[in-house]
Amino acid sequence: MTETDFFEITDRDNALFEAGIKLGALYHQFVGSPLSVSGISSMEKAIQESISAQPFVESVSVKIDAKVVAAELNEIFEYTELKGKMLDVKAIIRFNTARAFVSLKMNHEFNYPLMQIDKVEKAEE
Amino acid sequence: MTETDFFEITDRDNALFEAGIKLGALYHQFVGSPLSVSGISSMEKAIQESISAQPFVESVSVKIDAKVVAAELNEIFEYTELKGKMLDVKAIIRFNTARAFVSLKMNHEFNYPLMQIDKVEKAEE
Amino acid sequence: MTETDFFEITDRDNALFEAGIKLGALYHQFVGSPLSVSGISSMEKAIQESISAQPFVESVSVKIDAKVVAAELNEIFEYTELKGKMLDVKAIIRFNTARAFVSLKMNHEFNYPLMQIDKVEKAEE
Amino acid sequence: MTETDFFEITDRDNALFEAGIKLGALYHQFVGSPLSVSGISSMEKAIQESISAQPFVESVSVKIDAKVVAAELNEIFEYTELKGKMLDVKAIIRFNTARAFVSLKMNHEFNYPLMQIDKVEKAEE
Repeated sequence: MTETDFFEITDRDNALFEAGIKLGALYHQFVGSPLSVSGISSMEKAIQESISAQPFVESVSVKIDAKVVAAELNEIFEYTELKGKMLDVKAIIRFNTARAFVSLKMNHEFNYPLMQIDKVEKAEE
Repeated sequence: MTETDFFEITDRDNALFEAGIKLGALYHQFVGSPLSVSGISSMEKAIQESISAQPFVESVSVKIDAKVVAAELNEIFEYTELKGKMLDVKAIIRFNTARAFVSLKMNHEFNYPLMQIDKVEKAEE
Repeated sequence: MTETDFFEITDRDNALFEAGIKLGALYHQFVGSPLSVSGISSMEKAIQESISAQPFVESVSVKIDAKVVAAELNEIFEYTELKGKMLDVKAIIRFNTARAFVSLKMNHEFNYPLMQIDKVEKAEE
Repeated sequence: MTETDFFEITDRDNALFEAGIKLGALYHQFVGSPLSVSGISSMEKAIQESISAQPFVESVSVKIDAKVVAAELNEIFEYTELKGKMLDVKAIIRFNTARAFVSLKMNHEFNYPLMQIDKVEKAEE
């Protein structure tokens, strides 16, 4: 392997790495939380504020799909747990001169709560 | 061991077992969540509503100590994580004819976030 | 309410409370962990040793159902997450003179990973 | 902002995003697990196999510092919890033509368990 096969690490690299950290953290911290339909809005708000406290976060929006929550309620105990398929998350992460737009959303083709990069742009210094 | 060494399982037993489940769940679900001082009230509310969604819960009160959060903030990144020593939780669990009052609070003698039974009482049927 | 409606807190009460804590902790700490069929045995062992480190635990046995794991694998990414319905846990908790036998297992009638008290017995002092 | 301020999303971008996801997941899934010195090796192995089950992971190495675990043991209950400062993690993530080397390790200057990009290289197709 030649010298040129190694990349210098850029702001864009760090913005995307940090964006991944935030989505991985969000998912594995909060998925599994006991949840009822009436608890959706407080859970959305707490997750947003929690992940927003982390470094390099410009904004986080968390939506929990009430229809999916309602459909997943246990019939006897009338609650469920926060699951990946209920989540619709958008986050904007900035690292110096780079801004990454990423999201987490159920992908029905893959049957998987997919995390993806939506856009990367240059940030004003 | 004689027959009489076995206990019949009572409502009181189940109330205490369920109370333990709730505190263990609360602690291991939410401890570790990224947290800043401004995110305390939304975190308290989300935890309360989440644990209240579980079976047999009459009430849950969650207080996060802002002074401890402030003292634990990372100096560079200005946030911390929810830790056991920040929590002051009181929960009331009812199982048919028994009601258990339990709590989770930092015990400074043990240097440990102690979960304990505060009281058990008979519930009106 | 009269004085006699309050119960004195016994070793049996504490054994059951502590047993509940352990099952609630186990569930909310480890459910959600990425899991493949080949990772089952290391996950079982780690959970057993982790929960065994907690106070008052005499033993913990954790079985993860390989058939359920295999059935839950995502078709594209070929892994899943640890879910309540995969778990078969038995734990023995002792608090001084009382020993509680509790379990966590999928209950198909309730469609729920049910935690329950199986037995309480007197322990030799 | 001109058209050219937007970046096309590359394999390198995805490798770094996926690498961040894995470290965020690892941290928020397993930090908080009850831990004793004797449980270190099973916890290391379970975390490695769990995170290795996720997409795009070539390897994960997890070391838990036994000295830090020993120093953090509660004096009465003789266990602690997995904490960020105990972890030394190295992961290699490949996304098509790009391979990212990332790590998580206590940074004593920042008093923070720092996740960072160590290297990015071109992968053979």
